[in-house]
Amino acid sequence: MDSRPGLAMDATSLEVFLAREFPQVAADFAIEAAGPEGVRLRLRVAEKHLRPGGTVSGPTIFALADVGIYLAILARIGPVALAVTTNASVDFMRKPAAGADLLAEIRILKLGRTLAVGDVLVFSEGAEGPVARASMTYAIPPKAAG
Amino acid sequence: MDSRPGLAMDATSLEVFLAREFPQVAADFAIEAAGPEGVRLRLRVAEKHLRPGGTVSGPTIFALADVGIYLAILARIGPVALAVTTNASVDFMRKPAAGADLLAEIRILKLGRTLAVGDVLVFSEGAEGPVARASMTYAIPPKAAG
Amino acid sequence: MDSRPGLAMDATSLEVFLAREFPQVAADFAIEAAGPEGVRLRLRVAEKHLRPGGTVSGPTIFALADVGIYLAILARIGPVALAVTTNASVDFMRKPAAGADLLAEIRILKLGRTLAVGDVLVFSEGAEGPVARASMTYAIPPKAAG
Amino acid sequence: MDSRPGLAMDATSLEVFLAREFPQVAADFAIEAAGPEGVRLRLRVAEKHLRPGGTVSGPTIFALADVGIYLAILARIGPVALAVTTNASVDFMRKPAAGADLLAEIRILKLGRTLAVGDVLVFSEGAEGPVARASMTYAIPPKAAG
Repeated sequence: MDSRPGLAMDATSLEVFLAREFPQVAADFAIEAAGPEGVRLRLRVAEKHLRPGGTVSGPTIFALADVGIYLAILARIGPVALAVTTNASVDFMRKPAAGADLLAEIRILKLGRTLAVGDVLVFSEGAEGPVARASMTYAIPPKAAG
Repeated sequence: MDSRPGLAMDATSLEVFLAREFPQVAADFAIEAAGPEGVRLRLRVAEKHLRPGGTVSGPTIFALADVGIYLAILARIGPVALAVTTNASVDFMRKPAAGADLLAEIRILKLGRTLAVGDVLVFSEGAEGPVARASMTYAIPPKAAG
Repeated sequence: MDSRPGLAMDATSLEVFLAREFPQVAADFAIEAAGPEGVRLRLRVAEKHLRPGGTVSGPTIFALADVGIYLAILARIGPVALAVTTNASVDFMRKPAAGADLLAEIRILKLGRTLAVGDVLVFSEGAEGPVARASMTYAIPPKAAG
Repeated sequence: MDSRPGLAMDATSLEVFLAREFPQVAADFAIEAAGPEGVRLRLRVAEKHLRPGGTVSGPTIFALADVGIYLAILARIGPVALAVTTNASVDFMRKPAAGADLLAEIRILKLGRTLAVGDVLVFSEGAEGPVARASMTYAIPPKAAG
């Protein structure tokens, strides 16, 4: 979507970054693909992510979208630990399938000097219609954007 | 995105519907494509859509997204004049190009019994990065959904 | 909400600004009150604002919210014609009353160096429950914020 | 905001409900006030809510807003365990103060037959400007609304 083509970090670099900066949650996530157009991120769904009834909780889906768009921005601009989420909009559309991981497909729509915008569709692995849609804006620290 | 495959109205039927139900604005729009996965809608940009400075105004972009998602829902469920927008989220990302039409690429993400959700990317014709992104929810009257 | 107390423009200054910068729409609006905590803005509802059926259209409500939050920011930072809307979220909650003006109650929630955030409740004059709720973010040009 | 005056559950009933239905998180929250116009909810900030750097994480703020609006709806319609969040919009505006609890001030803006809408301002205890703003929509099961 965004025309600047570069890729500053690949899937492996992003996993290393995640493990170092967010050790509490890094094991929950696996980066399935990372390119200039976006990232595919897996949430390894575990007991702690579930609400009563067995579906993944709203805050967990929010966190998946937030981490995913953040990583997709880093894939483009490099390891900037300080980008901050300023706005998030989420539509919860379907109940996640029980016992399935979640897969987030992230696109970067804008990568400006001070603001970046991405969106994401979240799917239960193996299911067709998306569980959720989210779009988020991040403020980029002055010197970080390329 | 949504798995139900049917197409209840094609581009021609949608244009007829638009002209009959929204005669004030129908001439501003042209339906470039309509299929079960979504709709492409053109806004014929005119003087009345511009802000001082010559760019398309925010409310005009909002209207384009709103009409586009509405038509993409009708393409699936047929001519239901009563679906109502309940929520809209819009990111304005780039200044529209002066003197260019706007093209809206709409996807239907959910088509439920009572709620439908779609999203849209808006481009200036001939430009690469999207001008805006929007997602909207519509309440469907009880008997309308298939 | 925001702790900086100053008021850079009062209701009269805002009306003068609106008439000069947005002559096409200025006559639609009346600024009922303006203070450091927010602005009350009236939309003089006319035929052109209505959808078939006689209720105020979604894009009109969007425009009312957008103009209102913009003016409430200017009331605080002075006549900066360049602040740009970057994000908008709107909930349409009730059908506007037929034949009634709309009143928008705007609050400024954040007035930062580069971003400002405000929200608004829109009422039909004389009715109790809000017709709509909106929140919007504006990018402030580098030298404008106080 | 909403004109229907009744209160179906008071602060004590809401705490009992929370402890029974959401035992994993109930201890994190304290209901400071509950009335027909809204709820004030405290998040007892603990280590697990923090990001590296010591501020409360985005998903935690999301969860606080989500639980708070949900409880404010229940205060009006009674203990309906099945209301589902369909849309959320969040603005993150200020860094939470280190070592302070968060207080959420929730208003119910609409309580319809099938949809309810609320909004919330989140503050660090003792600080003035809001940390975050959120608005959320909930789908209410057919027989639940009063």
